[in-house]
Amino acid sequence: MKGLVPPFITTILEGRIKKLHNTDRISLDHGGGGRISHRLISDLILPAFDNVVLSQLGDGAVLNLNGMRLAFSTDTFTVDPLFFPGGDIGRLAINGTVNDIAMCGADPLFLSVGVLIEEGFPLDDFRSIIAAMSESAKEAGVMIVTGDTKVVPKGAADMLFVNTTGIGIIPDGIEISPRRAEPDDRIILSGTIGDHGLAVLLQRESMAVDASIHSDTAPLNHLVKKMLSASPNIHVLRDPTRGGLGTTLNEIAQSSQKGIIIQQTEIPIKTEVESVCELMGFDPLYLANEGKLVAIVPETDTDKVLTAMRRDPHGKEAAIIGQVVSERSGMVLMKTKIGGMRIVEMLSSEQLPRIC
Amino acid sequence: MKGLVPPFITTILEGRIKKLHNTDRISLDHGGGGRISHRLISDLILPAFDNVVLSQLGDGAVLNLNGMRLAFSTDTFTVDPLFFPGGDIGRLAINGTVNDIAMCGADPLFLSVGVLIEEGFPLDDFRSIIAAMSESAKEAGVMIVTGDTKVVPKGAADMLFVNTTGIGIIPDGIEISPRRAEPDDRIILSGTIGDHGLAVLLQRESMAVDASIHSDTAPLNHLVKKMLSASPNIHVLRDPTRGGLGTTLNEIAQSSQKGIIIQQTEIPIKTEVESVCELMGFDPLYLANEGKLVAIVPETDTDKVLTAMRRDPHGKEAAIIGQVVSERSGMVLMKTKIGGMRIVEMLSSEQLPRIC
Repeated sequence: MKGLVPPFITTILEGRIKKLHNTDRISLDHGGGGRISHRLISDLILPAFDNVVLSQLGDGAVLNLNGMRLAFSTDTFTVDPLFFPGGDIGRLAINGTVNDIAMCGADPLFLSVGVLIEEGFPLDDFRSIIAAMSESAKEAGVMIVTGDTKVVPKGAADMLFVNTTGIGIIPDGIEISPRRAEPDDRIILSGTIGDHGLAVLLQRESMAVDASIHSDTAPLNHLVKKMLSASPNIHVLRDPTRGGLGTTLNEIAQSSQKGIIIQQTEIPIKTEVESVCELMGFDPLYLANEGKLVAIVPETDTDKVLTAMRRDPHGKEAAIIGQVVSERSGMVLMKTKIGGMRIVEMLSSEQLPRIC
Repeated sequence: MKGLVPPFITTILEGRIKKLHNTDRISLDHGGGGRISHRLISDLILPAFDNVVLSQLGDGAVLNLNGMRLAFSTDTFTVDPLFFPGGDIGRLAINGTVNDIAMCGADPLFLSVGVLIEEGFPLDDFRSIIAAMSESAKEAGVMIVTGDTKVVPKGAADMLFVNTTGIGIIPDGIEISPRRAEPDDRIILSGTIGDHGLAVLLQRESMAVDASIHSDTAPLNHLVKKMLSASPNIHVLRDPTRGGLGTTLNEIAQSSQKGIIIQQTEIPIKTEVESVCELMGFDPLYLANEGKLVAIVPETDTDKVLTAMRRDPHGKEAAIIGQVVSERSGMVLMKTKIGGMRIVEMLSSEQLPRIC
């Protein structure tokens, strides 16, 4: 296995991490969802809050309350711009937490919304964002049951930030965890990658490269329900948001201590997304998605799950993109289009700040 | 009753509200916890998220999950400065949500923490804040089980903001709600008012007026547990945070459609807080508290509850400050020190932004 990572690459990466980690100030990389972010969490936050539930590091916590299993998850949204093709921060904030709860195998039920607003923010925009949240909650079938609004003086926050936190119930018999990936399990991706990250980036830079590039923000709980009905044996569910598919697969490989091999030719991607990425030098593997999921499924149940997914509007383009292997523990490899084998690293620094 | 509010006062207040409410931008008053804030919630947010749980507007939502009653509450903390005499934003954020859950009559169990950090924030300060959260969680006996860290570019947020969201279980037989205030109920305040608001303000303005003024930030869940053991018949529990005691009592009077009469001479206040308030023109009734509660208790159970409170470190100075009356529905009146009767209005605008 070691032969696959040229030693000089490891050294460069470790050096970069060390340098960033040794500075005495928070950098954008600390929040980027990549390797530096993981270090901040594992070195500083986890030891302070040490407890069994937190250290499992799923998309949400799984709590046992009088024999009932609850999924509990929180996320803060700082996307810039607030409105972008295919959505806005309100829609993103509701779908994001709905999806994190769904990725625990739970039915999301209740959400809280905390809004932090900069003084002078246009009331009409606020109204649009609240309306988008309301619509998204209806679409997902969840209730917004409690909230908080704080206004800070002009300049103390850039426009508006939203925190959503959610609760869902995990049905009996469902055991979803990134640790459960097993050799021979198939890796299913629910649809195309890169849409959200690229849509936000193009909007932010006011580049009208391609009008057909939209955020994929969507609630995935109905899709997950269908998948779990088809097979309660699904091992892992994750939504590849910040850090993209590349980071998510690395997290799964590390949590399960298995290897992951994917085929580049099998990964769904829109032609226009692929072209713009090539033009601008972005790797779509690391672009955020907001309406996609990765499922790791026992080989025997793969067809059932795939059929169920393709019947849902958010799983129509679902595809098997690879499989779990016992070798290459903790690593992600990709067979490239031209037939080579590439290591898919965990992103160490922030590719795009304020993408969600 | 109407004779008590001179018509010109009503007109001035309504005019101010209308003016502020008709502007097309968010103002600090929209987040101040006072009347303008309530209008934003009732006119814009509640209709959009319309549902039975949200419209109860307690300190948290009460959810029924398979027969188990859960309290669920969220709060975003934007206090400036982050460190102040008696505490910091970390301590405040944990205690604030612990207290909101406790005010539903629930045992707080699990918290989520969402931290939003400005690029360049000193890592040592971040470490101190995380350590304070950890200590506060231990003191309250709650677990931080899930979290999120976002970093935004320099200038996009002022230092650091924290969202905490919590879950607790409401024991059987407990029914706490601001609607339950009944005529003849006694109003108990757990201790002195104004400490937190004044401590933060003095620190922010770098005024070393009196070194003995500290924030009262504290977890109140252990106190509440003792109170509910003494009497499961407590009707209302609220912590008078943003907007202070004056606003909290108005919220209770309006929710219950009862009148409230308090005695100024009975309200605990530290001499130094009272003096600085007089000097600077602050009304301590509207200063934020972060470790105090108001309990509304049937007259027959008042002594039991008061005795239990005084045995807890956070209730030593508990006092009966007034009572609920059937007349003057929705209003709060105060018998002043000099024997007059004063209307305690709901604050319409923001007295102190970023106080919690």
